[in-house]
Amino acid sequence: MSKYSIILGNLGNTCDRFLSSGYKDELPKETLIRQASEIDGVEGVELVGTWDVSRENVEQVGEMLAKYGLKCVSIIPDHFSQKRWGRGSLSAKDPDIRKQALEYTFECVEMARQLGCKTLNIWPGQDGYDYILQSDLVRERGWLKENIAKVAASAPDINFALEYKPKEPRNYCFMARASDTLLLAKETGLENVGVCIDTGHAFVAGENVAESIVILQEYGRKLFHMHFNDNYGAWDDDMIVGSVHFPVYVETLFWLKETKYAGWLSMDQYPYREDGQGALRESVEFLQMIERRLDDAVMQELRALVSAGDAVKTQRWLRKTFFK
Amino acid sequence: MSKYSIILGNLGNTCDRFLSSGYKDELPKETLIRQASEIDGVEGVELVGTWDVSRENVEQVGEMLAKYGLKCVSIIPDHFSQKRWGRGSLSAKDPDIRKQALEYTFECVEMARQLGCKTLNIWPGQDGYDYILQSDLVRERGWLKENIAKVAASAPDINFALEYKPKEPRNYCFMARASDTLLLAKETGLENVGVCIDTGHAFVAGENVAESIVILQEYGRKLFHMHFNDNYGAWDDDMIVGSVHFPVYVETLFWLKETKYAGWLSMDQYPYREDGQGALRESVEFLQMIERRLDDAVMQELRALVSAGDAVKTQRWLRKTFFK
Amino acid sequence: MSKYSIILGNLGNTCDRFLSSGYKDELPKETLIRQASEIDGVEGVELVGTWDVSRENVEQVGEMLAKYGLKCVSIIPDHFSQKRWGRGSLSAKDPDIRKQALEYTFECVEMARQLGCKTLNIWPGQDGYDYILQSDLVRERGWLKENIAKVAASAPDINFALEYKPKEPRNYCFMARASDTLLLAKETGLENVGVCIDTGHAFVAGENVAESIVILQEYGRKLFHMHFNDNYGAWDDDMIVGSVHFPVYVETLFWLKETKYAGWLSMDQYPYREDGQGALRESVEFLQMIERRLDDAVMQELRALVSAGDAVKTQRWLRKTFFK
Amino acid sequence: MSKYSIILGNLGNTCDRFLSSGYKDELPKETLIRQASEIDGVEGVELVGTWDVSRENVEQVGEMLAKYGLKCVSIIPDHFSQKRWGRGSLSAKDPDIRKQALEYTFECVEMARQLGCKTLNIWPGQDGYDYILQSDLVRERGWLKENIAKVAASAPDINFALEYKPKEPRNYCFMARASDTLLLAKETGLENVGVCIDTGHAFVAGENVAESIVILQEYGRKLFHMHFNDNYGAWDDDMIVGSVHFPVYVETLFWLKETKYAGWLSMDQYPYREDGQGALRESVEFLQMIERRLDDAVMQELRALVSAGDAVKTQRWLRKTFFK
Repeated sequence: MSKYSIILGNLGNTCDRFLSSGYKDELPKETLIRQASEIDGVEGVELVGTWDVSRENVEQVGEMLAKYGLKCVSIIPDHFSQKRWGRGSLSAKDPDIRKQALEYTFECVEMARQLGCKTLNIWPGQDGYDYILQSDLVRERGWLKENIAKVAASAPDINFALEYKPKEPRNYCFMARASDTLLLAKETGLENVGVCIDTGHAFVAGENVAESIVILQEYGRKLFHMHFNDNYGAWDDDMIVGSVHFPVYVETLFWLKETKYAGWLSMDQYPYREDGQGALRESVEFLQMIERRLDDAVMQELRALVSAGDAVKTQRWLRKTFFK
Repeated sequence: MSKYSIILGNLGNTCDRFLSSGYKDELPKETLIRQASEIDGVEGVELVGTWDVSRENVEQVGEMLAKYGLKCVSIIPDHFSQKRWGRGSLSAKDPDIRKQALEYTFECVEMARQLGCKTLNIWPGQDGYDYILQSDLVRERGWLKENIAKVAASAPDINFALEYKPKEPRNYCFMARASDTLLLAKETGLENVGVCIDTGHAFVAGENVAESIVILQEYGRKLFHMHFNDNYGAWDDDMIVGSVHFPVYVETLFWLKETKYAGWLSMDQYPYREDGQGALRESVEFLQMIERRLDDAVMQELRALVSAGDAVKTQRWLRKTFFK
Repeated sequence: MSKYSIILGNLGNTCDRFLSSGYKDELPKETLIRQASEIDGVEGVELVGTWDVSRENVEQVGEMLAKYGLKCVSIIPDHFSQKRWGRGSLSAKDPDIRKQALEYTFECVEMARQLGCKTLNIWPGQDGYDYILQSDLVRERGWLKENIAKVAASAPDINFALEYKPKEPRNYCFMARASDTLLLAKETGLENVGVCIDTGHAFVAGENVAESIVILQEYGRKLFHMHFNDNYGAWDDDMIVGSVHFPVYVETLFWLKETKYAGWLSMDQYPYREDGQGALRESVEFLQMIERRLDDAVMQELRALVSAGDAVKTQRWLRKTFFK
Repeated sequence: MSKYSIILGNLGNTCDRFLSSGYKDELPKETLIRQASEIDGVEGVELVGTWDVSRENVEQVGEMLAKYGLKCVSIIPDHFSQKRWGRGSLSAKDPDIRKQALEYTFECVEMARQLGCKTLNIWPGQDGYDYILQSDLVRERGWLKENIAKVAASAPDINFALEYKPKEPRNYCFMARASDTLLLAKETGLENVGVCIDTGHAFVAGENVAESIVILQEYGRKLFHMHFNDNYGAWDDDMIVGSVHFPVYVETLFWLKETKYAGWLSMDQYPYREDGQGALRESVEFLQMIERRLDDAVMQELRALVSAGDAVKTQRWLRKTFFK
């Protein structure tokens, strides 16, 4: 069985542009951490900068994690929730903002070390553009690459998983798809820069997740991290795993195994109006239900099926194998 | 258990714009009919005009159906595969084409009667437009409604199920969504004009199928027919049921029962590169797997779940009820 | 030239789920109103409940509008930005919430009367569902219709423009498309219930705006209001008019004239990172640039073009008529 | 002014899966070539294998092109319109089919040399998969890369432009997006392997064309070829340039100039129901209208605009610069 984790903030309050105060109430951090620890199979959490962790509280957060027996799987630097990053962080047009973003990212490296965490999951959601002819594409994409390279070169003990997403909060984000993000990672020339797949972001990008996994692994073993959720295909709805799709998760877990991915399976949802703990637990249990079935014999059957490529046979096999 | 049927042509050859000769070989009509009859649970077929049935062969087709114990569930008049309909049929700008389309549709009524078939499934795929400012929207939509009303008024013994689809072969089809097609049906003022939902067309339209069912049934009991298939959401891929999505089919069958739909569940796929019979059989078995579970007790559970609306609880229920 | 208006809040701060404090600073209400009045051609504003107007400040807002010579074009009741509406307002599962939503809507009617405003623009964005099998579709859609009918029946002096949008903030909103919203409006049986088209919402719904206009006007003269913006097609990006598309706005204005729409052209944008006044002004000027060209002679040319339907000719005409 | 070309087959008959005999009549090859030569500004044509050119007629085609003063800009090997490629060509599961595809591609190299043509535009549309768990992703993607490398290594005098498209005719094509195709090109390690952007394919992939141009040029000067058309965003509608979008073509031409693209601007459309020659001419004239305006002064203005990134200012500039 893989290692499972969750993003801590998924347990807390969530808002959107219409209901900015959020759909639920704020909970104390320790409650969130305790709730995480109560989900069977979950061994770690990811912490979002500002929201979950900062220089001020990092020690205290570390103690709480220790108390509840949870590892810090990654820190996700806050490159998106502060007004100063509104028009970009590591690739902002304003050199002073870029400098601040760089300094802040170095800070996150320090926090990671303090927490014994090996991964920074970089999601520069504000880095991109909204309108046509709004970005100096060559220079801004260049700044993004250079700044990531600067931090990563200075911290060879930390893995940098670049998380892509085609849009939101910008209409076009620079790290948009698996392959363009892989290209950026490879351009840094650094071994500790790779990519994070969020299944929902991949759906929105029109990608078949399994193929993105294969591309990242075949072109340099660059799959560093996995986020799981589900959506209807057009937007990052951040829903419970399996609430819309089914076979894609079987294929995803199959290729993770085939390509020897050894990282975490982390839940990343936005349960706006649902019980957060329940929503995360259900996702973990859904994936574990599939994973439990993928023993050696079934893996061998799947290898034969993808090799033959007979869709009728495969659909029948899926039905007989997974459904009552 | 519901009544299941298939569209006969799904068993034959299929082509696309790049491989116009088709991916498979042509099979004799009797082979197609025999194959249909061999699928467990399938009691009827739908026949497409020109492709499957015409004035010339209708008697012979009827005899073959009888020989293999199949009902003719619907005739789908060919308003799409002839060069003369290339710029529209019942709503074409050319009055002579509209006249031909009308006459041809009357012919189909006669064929239906000859085959003891109660439904014409009208899919005027060429009626619409490709470019902005290409259609005189008021007049052309008017012609479509008038011509459908003319045929339907003359044949009160036949039900006219209007099948909607947002695009393809036109970039914009006039019968595009459940509700606009219902509006058109209601404007005819005729009881025997209703709507056919194709699940894949509904996905492409961004509809939740269950809600389209409810709209059609609540606003006049106008759900006349159902076509089933699956796709990835952006295009009418016409795939095996359940090969992409799962919970949506549970909800669909639940609301069909709740709204007392008594019509056929018909498979409508395009197994370009697959074994046609196998692809259709798998769809039927997938739906029957769900349907078998929807006994009175489970229906009662589902009523409680939709009434409560707790997504976590419902996802758990789906997992426990349907998966091993 | 048509009457132009804007939604007041577009001039203020805007946030999203990642940057909940917003991308800009809050401005005093009078500044917003003054800025609206400074946009050439803008004669009115729409006010959003809670954000712009409430029982407490309605008189004061009226005075400010008078001071700056602006009409109140519509009130948009706040059915979306309060925690209590998080799981629905007029169709919430909780009867007490439905009652509160109804009472609040009556309040908005009173505010409209106080401001001499003839339209309530109803956008119940929280009314819908996120997950499959989460909604009791028959009952909840029924409550929505009944509650709208209750308010509208009690206020025949006010027009109720129902604004549709396929998703956001719910994954599926009950008022999703032009035609289903028209059906709901017609089911109320009330003359003062109609529909508002937001061009961006129509794009997301896969509609061609002109066809939605024609459907609403032909099936009962039910186009009550128009919101304008632009987007990339998959999401309600709420951008400056003409920043992505062009010909669709020509066709839209053409059919508004042809179907004798006499209402307002109102700008509805979310200029997250842009100067609000500038973004709205640019949209107004873009539409006026087109409208100015649509004199009698050009309207006659357009009638001939849509009647002929020759896309090559029409594209050439668009280029010669609008571009330098 | 750039060099303009067209794909010859765009002038001929076009079909789709419903009307397989096509919407128009077949025209003699010489008529197509003459029509191409009549479009002002068009200096070359692209030839599709099987449809336009084969070993049998290559000499004769060369003579016709000479007679009408047209260059052969590229040959597009037919990896998609023959039954034998129905389940893949260069990456087919069947080793014999792969061998045939390889041999056929070598043949196309010979044809290119005979016609003095420097580019093979490779679009292996059948290489991919339709269903989840249908492809042995590692091996099949590997075969595709190896076979392309084999041909390209053997023909250093020819450029291989790999044309990507997310779907159709397969639900998932292996060459799906700019960046994954660039990765594949780079993995071959060959200088003469690059990428072709089709604007419509990029739209369907959710890409902003200008950013794809920049990625390809910045990561190795790999933009080898450009195809132009327009669509509504969700499907490869292959429409006249500018019939849906406008600013994106300005940005595209700007960045082509900025990144010193020196290749052809080739029209690639499917005018199913339109006059082919007129549809192509209109696209060429639309692009030339923009290009004519991009003189040194305007390029300088655009550089300032993308550097500043003020969308309001840029939209105003676009309106003032291009519209009457």
